Parts: sequence; structure tokens; C-alpha cells
Amino acid sequence: MALHAVAQEYRQQSPLVFCLTNTVVTNFTANVLLASGASPAMTDLPGEAGPFAKAASAVLVNLGTPSTEQLAAMEEAVQSASAAGTPWILDPVAVGALPVRTDFARRIARQRPALIRGNASEILALAGRQSASRGVDALDDVSAALAAGRDLAQQHDCVVAISGQSDAIIDATRTVLVHTNGIGLTRITGGGCALGAFCAGMIAVHDDPFEAAIAAHGFYGLAAEKALKNSTGPGSFAVAFIDALSATDPEELKTLKHEELNHA
Amino acid sequence: MALHAVAQEYRQQSPLVFCLTNTVVTNFTANVLLASGASPAMTDLPGEAGPFAKAASAVLVNLGTPSTEQLAAMEEAVQSASAAGTPWILDPVAVGALPVRTDFARRIARQRPALIRGNASEILALAGRQSASRGVDALDDVSAALAAGRDLAQQHDCVVAISGQSDAIIDATRTVLVHTNGIGLTRITGGGCALGAFCAGMIAVHDDPFEAAIAAHGFYGLAAEKALKNSTGPGSFAVAFIDALSATDPEELKTLKHEELNHA
Amino acid sequence: MALHAVAQEYRQQSPLVFCLTNTVVTNFTANVLLASGASPAMTDLPGEAGPFAKAASAVLVNLGTPSTEQLAAMEEAVQSASAAGTPWILDPVAVGALPVRTDFARRIARQRPALIRGNASEILALAGRQSASRGVDALDDVSAALAAGRDLAQQHDCVVAISGQSDAIIDATRTVLVHTNGIGLTRITGGGCALGAFCAGMIAVHDDPFEAAIAAHGFYGLAAEKALKNSTGPGSFAVAFIDALSATDPEELKTLKHEELNHA
Repeated sequence: MALHAVAQEYRQQSPLVFCLTNTVVTNFTANVLLASGASPAMTDLPGEAGPFAKAASAVLVNLGTPSTEQLAAMEEAVQSASAAGTPWILDPVAVGALPVRTDFARRIARQRPALIRGNASEILALAGRQSASRGVDALDDVSAALAAGRDLAQQHDCVVAISGQSDAIIDATRTVLVHTNGIGLTRITGGGCALGAFCAGMIAVHDDPFEAAIAAHGFYGLAAEKALKNSTGPGSFAVAFIDALSATDPEELKTLKHEELNHA
Repeated sequence: MALHAVAQEYRQQSPLVFCLTNTVVTNFTANVLLASGASPAMTDLPGEAGPFAKAASAVLVNLGTPSTEQLAAMEEAVQSASAAGTPWILDPVAVGALPVRTDFARRIARQRPALIRGNASEILALAGRQSASRGVDALDDVSAALAAGRDLAQQHDCVVAISGQSDAIIDATRTVLVHTNGIGLTRITGGGCALGAFCAGMIAVHDDPFEAAIAAHGFYGLAAEKALKNSTGPGSFAVAFIDALSATDPEELKTLKHEELNHA
Repeated sequence: MALHAVAQEYRQQSPLVFCLTNTVVTNFTANVLLASGASPAMTDLPGEAGPFAKAASAVLVNLGTPSTEQLAAMEEAVQSASAAGTPWILDPVAVGALPVRTDFARRIARQRPALIRGNASEILALAGRQSASRGVDALDDVSAALAAGRDLAQQHDCVVAISGQSDAIIDATRTVLVHTNGIGLTRITGGGCALGAFCAGMIAVHDDPFEAAIAAHGFYGLAAEKALKNSTGPGSFAVAFIDALSATDPEELKTLKHEELNHA
């Protein structure tokens, strides 16, 4: 598994990532994509979302702050992406805590996402298990959500990524833990949401979404480690993180700490 | 009045602040809440806003850029918050200058907000008095709006906070001026809007919303003073302010300059 | 042509710029306007957009992420601005790549904008010519879009500005190239979108929108050059750029490199 090669492809191809995402993180997400070398684009309008999902390299569906119209656009984008073979990523923000998105997420999860990315509480809730979330923050450990992640991966034939102290990347037969210090990302808004968009771009340029998700989480975490050193608080961390995404060399992924778990 | 104890409670309890706010400031507001120690969450969807207002520690209703659907969600959130006893805060952005929100603000103000927070022009307009606003910026002095603030406080049995060179916190029987140098906050967008969310968090953790609002304005202003020293313009101020919110110790509120006015 | 005098007027008058813009760049746009000395205001609500377009100094219509309701508000704002003589600016983001906005942009372009601002691909597409865009990024050179810009300028009796390595400002009889190093602006989101808002403010304070657009592009580019020197990546560039907009003296426009082309 040559993770650095995936990141090099990302830089070379500059994938066009179509994001249907929440109003809190649109700006940060677009800057994460630009800084890392991709091309972000947003539209939440039915009639545009469908055709654009066909043209884009990958599609992100993030349920952070849906409007009725955005939900319709998401539905259209997912159907169009599925039909066209464009990989799409589901980020089930606050699923379990909030009712409308929970139903919606369960329904579109059946439409073959390439990746479902969330925190432990969201993955537990999407899988229909008990979670301790009270909003958008995870109150569950990644380890507690591994079984739920495996369920989802097998049920939907997709990759599942669980963000936490270490990140777990799971598919039907494999589980890999990625170890970086991403503590800074938990102190700003959009750290996880923008990671979903970044994963979309990596998946667009590599034929194995499992490896692409590992590369994305690894690269993102290494950039977060640099940003932590170059900042004095969450405000300067967010700025340093964008700088670090641009400055990080794909070669650095050769030193990434990760381990494969036995898939029980 | 132990203001620093309120800020300590905020850090310990990490209140879940549900923000229905405007698209210009969502990111900054969420980062202000995270940096100061609270947990932000947003949804603007009817069907979600009601249940979430019940679960949240406090609710912010900011009228900066309402959509028809967001107004419906706000109405639902306010009714649910009132029924559940969740404190809610009204920030009547640009009331007086723009018609739809003006009617809406006057209507929901009757549903027992814990706090109404705005600049002098907005408070004057909400109280039905003559104001000089031409958009979202105040063209009136805080002193000119004190009587309007008292009217609103008595009429709605709530606290009223008026942001300006010094901030005025008013309830039915008391008026306190908080003196900090918040000039940096007037040079970036969202300084006032995010303060509304911060007040919501403070009010969630303390039984006297009047004291909580003083603590919020004081803490916020002290952080702004630090940020001004650590910045070279409005861009770096915004970054330094988020850092300062995280770095400021509740104990620093012991040195806050504030004075009680005679309530004529 | 005294470009610096236009920028001085902007600082003195602090124009009220009403922005109907996309959710990705609202915060950055508002901070660009505040830092440069203007007053930003947003509302996307029918019933408010019309009256506010009358009261504002200028109106920006940016088609980045329209909702059905925002499109209705834009239509209302444009009609009201036209009737009241308020100058309005059209930024046809991703026109050509996405269908709904393309039709909409062509229709409202007939309502006498003072300025149409876009990248080369957008200007080509709006003029009905072949373009190479694949999203929001230009894949065409400014030089390839000059003829399209002239067509639009003559057809709609307006100024057309094309952003690129050098920026072209075009009206029915003149074409000026503005030479600054704006490379940093291409590495962050919102660089072009916020420029549209800045142009709106400059046009509000000067009777010749052609000169005002040159002043806006020149001032913006000079600030971007400073920011590039004061930053280490795209994150710190965005921060330094806001600082630079605040710190740049209108007098510096006296050294702006620009040239008039022969209008074939």
C-alpha cells in the first residue's frame, strides 16, 4: 500500500470535489481543498446538483445544516453520482441527535456511498446502535464504534471511517487504525467536515477507496501535527493548518504510523 | 457578584449552545464557542429545531440573514425552548432597517427571551423608538438607547444588553456598564453576533441571566483587549481573538471594570 | 484618471454594500469590506431585498450558491436597484458549468448592471462563447476572453472586469489591463467573489464605473502583493490580506502598473 502515491495523484490530478455541505464549514472546507491541491465547488440547487455530480470527480454529502431544498439537491446529486459512477461520500453529522437527517441518512446510505465518515457517536447512531451524542460532538470512543463501523461497511459495501484520538478505516474485511495527533482539529469547527471533503478528493484519484481513506486521514493528521507546533491557540491553529496542508509533502506519508487490526 | 465563578462554570459545564444564526457568522460563532469552552450546534430545519431546543443548554436566535424556512425553525425553537425552560437569546440584527425581521422580532420577543442583545440602533428600533441605523451598524450611542433598553427589559421581563464603546446590561431594576476596549470587534464581522452565542452559553450555566450577561461581556471584552495587542490588523485580530478566548482565565474577570448606574 | 482619489472617497464615504452572495464567501466578503473601509450588509429574503437595494450604496449579486428563495430576492433587489438608480454588480460564478444560474444570469444581465465581474471562463460563457470551465475555476486566459468582454460591455452598456494573471477592465470603448501579482488570491476561496463586493463599493462612490473598477482591482491587487510577502501559505495569506486591505494607503495607487489596450 503506497499511501504517498495516492497523495501525489491528488496533487497532480487536482480533483474537482463537489460539496453539498453545511453553512458552518463551507469556507473552511473550500480552503482545505484548495490548500491541499484540489478544486472545490458548491451548489445546493436542485436542477444543478444532478448534472454537476456527473461532471465532478467526487461528491460530498454532509448533513450538518440541511434545508429542505438542500436535501432535495443531495438526493438528486446522489442518484446522479450513482448512475454516473462518481464516487460519493456521506458525512452523517449529528445523526442520532436530530430526527430529519437521521431518517434521510439511513435512506441515502443505501445508495452505495464509497465512504461513510463520522465520529464514533454518528457511526453508532447510523448503524442503529446506542450512542451518547448530545449534538455534533462525539461522546463515544472510536473503539466502541468499530463493530458498528464493520456492520455499516458490510451492509452498504463501502468504506467507513471513524474519526477520534486514532482514526479507524474499515471495510468489509479490513480495519486499519491511523495514529496521528489531531487534537488541534477538535478545537476548531469543521475539522471533521472538511476531512470528509478531503477524503472525497483522495477517493476520486485512486481505485481503492480503503487505501485512499487511509491516505487522506494520514495526510490530514500529519498536517494537523505541524499546525499544532506552529500555533498558540485554536484561531492560529486553523490558519496554520491550511498552511500545513499546502506545505506537506506526499512523501511524508511514508512515515505515517498505522496498524491493521484483526477483523474479528 | 462573582463574575469569574460564572465563567468557571461555563468552562466546566461546556454548555451546548444551539445557534440559529446568520450565514455570515456561523463559522466564527462556532469557533468562538469552541475556543471559550462551549459546544456549538446548528440546525435551521423545522422538525429538528424544536426537539433540539429542548435538548440544548441554551438557544440563540440571530436574525442576520433569515430565510423563510429558518424563520419557521426559529419560531419552532423558541416555542420549544419556552415550553422546556431552555433559556433563549434574541439578537435582532438590523431590526428597524429591514421590514420582515422587524415584525418577526417584535412578535417572538413576547415569548420570554432570557436576553435581548443588540447594538444601540437595534435596541432603539425594537423598542419602537427612532434610530439612525442604515444597515447592521449602529449609528446611535449606547447612552441614547438606555431608556429603550429599560423599556424592553420591563416589558418582556428579560435582560437587555447593548453593545457599544461600553456595554450596558439592563434588567427591570438594574443597569451596569462594562468597560473594556472592544474596538477590534467592530472591525471584523460577527463580533456582536458571536457575543450573543457566548451570552447564551453563560446564561445556560448560571441562574441569574443579568450576572451571566455581565460575565459574558466582560470576558469577551478582556479577550478582545489581548487580541488587539497580539494583532496588526482586522485579519490577525480575528485569529488572535479566538486564541485569546481560549487562553483567558476566568480569574481575570476579577479585574473587570464595571459600574452600576442609578436606574432612574 | 486619479485612481487614488477614488479609493480615498471609498474610505471617507464608507459605502453600504448590500451583498446577495454565496454561502462559501459571506464571512470573507464582509471582512474584506470592513477592512477596506466599507460597511457590508446581507439579506437574502424577498420582501427585504427590494427595500434594502433602494437604501444601499450599491448591490452585489453573486451567483455562487443560489437557493430558489435567494434567486427571488436577487430578482427583487435588481429591479429595485435599477428603479432607484443604485448601481448593481453581477458576478456570474460558474455560469456555463451549471444550468440554472446560467439562464438566470443571462436574464438579469439585461437589467443594466454597472459591472459584470468574473474570470475568463465565466465571461466567455455569459457571452455565449465556448469556454473550458469545469466548475468555479477558470481554465481560459484573460486574453482569450477580451472579445467576449467587449461584446458584453457593448450589449449591456456596462463595464466588464475579467480577473486573471492581469485583470482586464473593459467598457464599450476602452480596455485597461491592471498588472499586480494576485497569485495568492487564487489559492484561497473567495478572492474573486469578495473583489466583486469591493468593486461595488468603489462604484458607489465614483461616477465613472470604469475608473472605479480599475481602482478596485488595483487596490485589491496591491494589498494581495503585501499579503504574499507577509504569509507562509494560503491560510496566513487570507489573514494577511485582510490586514493589508486595512493598511494599504489609497496613495499607493499612484504606483499601480496598468496599460490601455487599443480597442480593436
